[in-house]
Order: sequence, then C-alpha cells, then structure tokens
Amino acid sequence: MREVVIAGVGQIAVREHWETSLRDLAYQSIKKAVSDAGTDSVDALYIGNMLAGELSGQEHLGALISDYCGFDGIEAVRIEAAAASGGAALRQGAMSVACGLNDCVVVTGVEQMTDVLQDKVTAGLSLALDTEYELASGISLAALFAILTRRYVHEGCCSPEDLALFCVNAQKNAVGNDYAMFRREITVDTIMRSPMAADPIHVLECPPVCDGSASVVLLPAEKADLEAPVKITGSAVATGTIGVNNRPDPLVFESVRDSTEKALRMAGKTREDVDFYELHDLFPVVAALSLEASGFAKKGEGALMARNGDIALEGKIPITTMGGCKARGNPVGACGIYQAAEAVLQLRQQAGKNQLPCEVGMIQCMGGTAATTITHILEV
Amino acid sequence: MREVVIAGVGQIAVREHWETSLRDLAYQSIKKAVSDAGTDSVDALYIGNMLAGELSGQEHLGALISDYCGFDGIEAVRIEAAAASGGAALRQGAMSVACGLNDCVVVTGVEQMTDVLQDKVTAGLSLALDTEYELASGISLAALFAILTRRYVHEGCCSPEDLALFCVNAQKNAVGNDYAMFRREITVDTIMRSPMAADPIHVLECPPVCDGSASVVLLPAEKADLEAPVKITGSAVATGTIGVNNRPDPLVFESVRDSTEKALRMAGKTREDVDFYELHDLFPVVAALSLEASGFAKKGEGALMARNGDIALEGKIPITTMGGCKARGNPVGACGIYQAAEAVLQLRQQAGKNQLPCEVGMIQCMGGTAATTITHILEV
Repeated sequence: MREVVIAGVGQIAVREHWETSLRDLAYQSIKKAVSDAGTDSVDALYIGNMLAGELSGQEHLGALISDYCGFDGIEAVRIEAAAASGGAALRQGAMSVACGLNDCVVVTGVEQMTDVLQDKVTAGLSLALDTEYELASGISLAALFAILTRRYVHEGCCSPEDLALFCVNAQKNAVGNDYAMFRREITVDTIMRSPMAADPIHVLECPPVCDGSASVVLLPAEKADLEAPVKITGSAVATGTIGVNNRPDPLVFESVRDSTEKALRMAGKTREDVDFYELHDLFPVVAALSLEASGFAKKGEGALMARNGDIALEGKIPITTMGGCKARGNPVGACGIYQAAEAVLQLRQQAGKNQLPCEVGMIQCMGGTAATTITHILEV
Repeated sequence: MREVVIAGVGQIAVREHWETSLRDLAYQSIKKAVSDAGTDSVDALYIGNMLAGELSGQEHLGALISDYCGFDGIEAVRIEAAAASGGAALRQGAMSVACGLNDCVVVTGVEQMTDVLQDKVTAGLSLALDTEYELASGISLAALFAILTRRYVHEGCCSPEDLALFCVNAQKNAVGNDYAMFRREITVDTIMRSPMAADPIHVLECPPVCDGSASVVLLPAEKADLEAPVKITGSAVATGTIGVNNRPDPLVFESVRDSTEKALRMAGKTREDVDFYELHDLFPVVAALSLEASGFAKKGEGALMARNGDIALEGKIPITTMGGCKARGNPVGACGIYQAAEAVLQLRQQAGKNQLPCEVGMIQCMGGTAATTITHILEV
C-alpha cells in the first residue's frame, strides 16, 4: 500500500451562493486545489455530496463535475454517507492512490443548500436518519439532537451554558478564517437569549444552512515533490446503530469511539500525539459526546473541556480550530473536505492568526446521529 | 496491490416487491452471498444505489443496511454513479481489498422503484442527465435515447426490426434465469406492434421498472480457499461529456470505448480473449452502440451483430446472457452487481441452460447516456 499525501487544497468561502450553480461551486475549489498542488494531470475525481438529488435535482455528480472541469474522460464517482460524505470521499480517493490505480486524485466536497425553500433542507437532512422508523414518527435531525442534549444536561454532565461555550469557541476561531461564514465573536449570554430552534438547542447553537465546496489533491508520497508534505497516515470508518432508540446508551457514540480507535492504531499514534481534533460540531452536544467517545474526555466530562478552556487554540486539545460546522458553516457533504483543507493549513503552518504548534491532526465527520463516523489522521 | 476474487454471489428475483422494504431487499441478497462465500466475518459493506433519496426517502444506506444486517459497526458507504452505481461500488469495494485495508467486503446493489407513482421514476432516472441544460428543456432519459435511435436508423446502420432483435435475444436468455423478470420468448413482430414509449422506441423495447438486489463477497486471492476462484483482473471507469448535444458524434460512446480499453489493458487481455460481454442494454440502440464503442463491431455495424446471431449464446460474442436490463430487469443501481453475479455463475459453470464455454467475461454498466461507463474483467 503506497503512502498518500495531500499535495494541494482549495476552499471557497462558505456563504449563501444563490447565484452560483452546484457544478461551479465545485469547480472553484477544484481549480484552487489543483493550482495549489501544481499538478497538470488528474486521474480521478471523487465527489462527496449528500443532497444534490433532493436540493439541486441532480444525481451523477461525478460525470457532471468532471465534464465541467474539462477533465477529459477520467474516472469520476460520487460517495455518500450522509454528513460524513466528505470524509468518505477522502477515504475512497486515498484508497485509489494507495492501491496504485491512480496517481493524482482530486477529492471534492460540495453542497448547495440555500437555493431552495428551507423546509426542503430540514426534510433532506433528516434522510440521514432511519426514515421508516425515526422520521416516520415526525422527528427531525435537530429534534433528535435536542433529546440527546436534554438527556446530557439531565444527567448532570453540565449546564446549558457550558454547552454554549462550544459555540463561543467556534465563532472566536472563525474570526481568523476568511472562508468561514460567521466571523464574529459571540457570548454565552447572546446565545442563551436567542430563540429556541429545538428546545433546549437555541438558534445560535445551530450550524447555518449554507453553500460551499472544498477540494484536496492526493498523490502517492513517492511522486510528491514537496518539502514537508502532509501525509494521510490513518483512515477509518465505523458505523453504529442507525436509530438512537436502539442504542444501549444514547449518550455513547460508538462509531466515534471505534473509528477513532482504528484510525489511531493505523497511524501508530496515541491521543497524546494528536495536536488538534477537527470534530463534527453539528450541535454543542455532538462536540461534547465526540470528545468523550474519542477518549479525550471521560464519560460525562466532555462539556467540562469547554468550561476549562481545554478546547481553545491554546488549550489541551484544540477543536474546530477554523470555526467548525457552527461558524465556518455546514455545507453538509463538503464538511469532511473543509476539515481536511483546514488541517492541512495548520500542519503546513499556514493557518494565520489561528496557527497552532502542530505535527499531527485528527479530522472526523459524522453522518446522522453518529450512525457513520469517519476519522483521518494527518501528519507532517 | 493484492489480487481480488469474488468468493460469493447472491441475487433476489427481480420483480415488483411492493411488500418488501429497501433494507430487506438488500439483506436478502447479502445473506445469500455471505452464505455462498462461507465467510463468517465481514469488514465492510459497499452499497451501489442511485435513487433511494428520491424514491424511498432514505439516504445514508451504508449505515442503514449494515445495521439491519447485524454487521457490528463495520465500514459502510454508498457509491453513486447513476445507473453505473453498482459497477462503481464493485470497483471501490475491490480497491479496499486490493490496497489491504479490508479482507472481506460485501458489495451490494439495491434499488426499489415500484412503490411510488411512476412519474417519480421517470423524473428520478432523468437526474442522471445534465438537469440544468438537458432536463430543463423537457427531455427525459428515454427521449434522449429515442433521438439516438432515430439517428442511428437514419444513418442507415440498420432497420428498426434489427434493433428489436436485441430484445428478442435478451428475453430468450432470460427464460433460463430464475431471477429474471420477463421469462418468456418474444418476437420482433410483437415488439413492433407494441405501443410507442418514446418514438421510435416501443414499450417492449424498454427495460421494466422493478425492484431488486444482488450482492458479491470479495476477498484477497491469497485468503480465498476456493478451487477455481473468479478473479477481478481488470477495472476501469471512464466519463464522457454529460450532455449528448455537446458530443462531437452522439453515436460514439467515448466512455465505453475508453473504459473497455483501460480494463482490457489492465487485465492483459484482448477482445479475442473475452468469451461474453454483459453490456448495459438499457435500450436496443445502447447495445448496438456499446458493441461498436467497445470494439466488437465496426462503427455502424453493431446492430448487424444481432441480425447475424453473433450476440446469441452460441454466437461470436454473447451478450446479456442471463437477460440483461431488458429481460432480467433494470433495478438501476443494482444492475452492475447483477451483471457481476451472472458473470460469476457463467465462469463457475453454474449458469444452467444458459451455460457458455467460458473463462473470461467482461461486464459493463453505464450512467446516463454513457456519461459514465464502468468495465470489469472477470476470469477463472
């Protein structure tokens, strides 16, 4: 198996891009990534996307975007694992380089969500749940996370204000990220005074509905003529029970635990080696439960890390260092690639004001209520 | 790169399975394939599916089906390339074995299409086109193929009756396939007297809307304890211009040509070595143009092969040996895996009345109007 490196990254600003087509969103980040990598031939294009069928009336994104980019007849395919689609595409693209079938692969995450009525977005996102059993009962994705949040607070793990601190941290970090959507600091008080979205989750604790695209260029290490290339040393997918109601303990994200464990083992690293952790902060409780399941916090103590400042840039284990889903924005199937691009900037020491001293990063994206979790370890 | 073998296959009969859920369709073929392979642990599940979001209101099939099958927390992901989704999933699953990340992978194609109003199916299938440019003009997938058919006949390549012979051949072969939907012989006369679906394509030249699922189990050759394992020796994806209107010659399927060429080269085979060719016979003209683009017929002479009997079981290059899309049925994203399962039965000498003398088979599935083509070479 060949070692795979990320030789180029490209992002477009996460915004409401009503005037831009889905294919053009993708093209813009691909162009930047290919230019960043300085490559002149691409063997394959892997697309991570969840909702183009529902929201843009378009399947078959592989051929569509490959054609639009002028990639002459290359391999192109779309990978879907709900909100983990970006991470899943990264894994598949890296596999195709690792096994020797491709030399230069572009992996692109793209999602267009604002050019439709917003009830379609809520309905679309909920297709990540078990629709015959969960959705049929009238519950949405946000409502399920609201139940988890309520339970988490009920068990005495933290106060609602502690959870809001995850959002405070994310928005603070986004100030230094040109590609982020919410680039202003926010206080716990402002969050707690915002309307309820799904009680007890406030509107200002929700990630924005938005459009975005990010791309990375993958090469085999042996062919990457780079001074300090960012290597993908760990990659793991784990699934869990799809319905929250069927889990022995709904506050344990088994797929986060399992995929973290597998990815670290593959990379030959421990948690102590990880300098930052780009987790999937869909809602504050997801950040707290991810810190616990991945072993950075004990059970019930994830939110304490926000209270103690452990998750800040200067903390023990910085998370959402460029804003995360909350503040960079959550273009669903693109998130995993935004995470990868952000981690590469950190590891290359190109993260500007948000720069961490770092050599090893862990990125992780999640589908549904953690029915799928995909974790990658990146290193310089 | 490790050599990959297909160690088990499972199919369910292609029918209108109104009473069965999407997950249960998948489970039934997975159970058969796992039992056929005699394996007791599965590392990953790759799902090929195009339309579950649109027709079943369910994304995130990887986690859903993995959970339903009781595969405890394994890797699971969905791969989409329109009607080539099955072939795309086969390729990704095989890559994950080839590169050493997984040892035992189940690849499943599944599609449920009959439990909705049929205009939704027509609309869903058309999402494989360039929806902003082609679909927006009011054209459907069948209408585009009707235009290609008309042009093909206009250029003097054959008569409409010659094209109908592809359907006669497919239905004849389906008689020997328990899993096929249309298991009765049919005549050119009956076809030509059937109503027009999209002039000049008759209703009886169209594949049926149906439900189905097929699965294969992949292992590394070194761990497959089989007497005569079926090896995957060639695998290639090629894309082409997505819009038919943008192609230099609409009667040349460039992606079929390119993916055939690449797959044969990878397997170290020539066309003469190929004993049968499971092509994507969505409509008769697709079969004719595929024979031409893949180099088994000269340009303009694909339909002659039907007239001359070259495509029959005893012909020069048998196609759709178990009925193809036309007669086995066309559960869209599952077709590529049905092709793989059928080819394995041929290569294992288990194809019953339809058995060919064979050692090398080529299977090929196509998305849209050949915007994506995926070709695999299988050998014993």
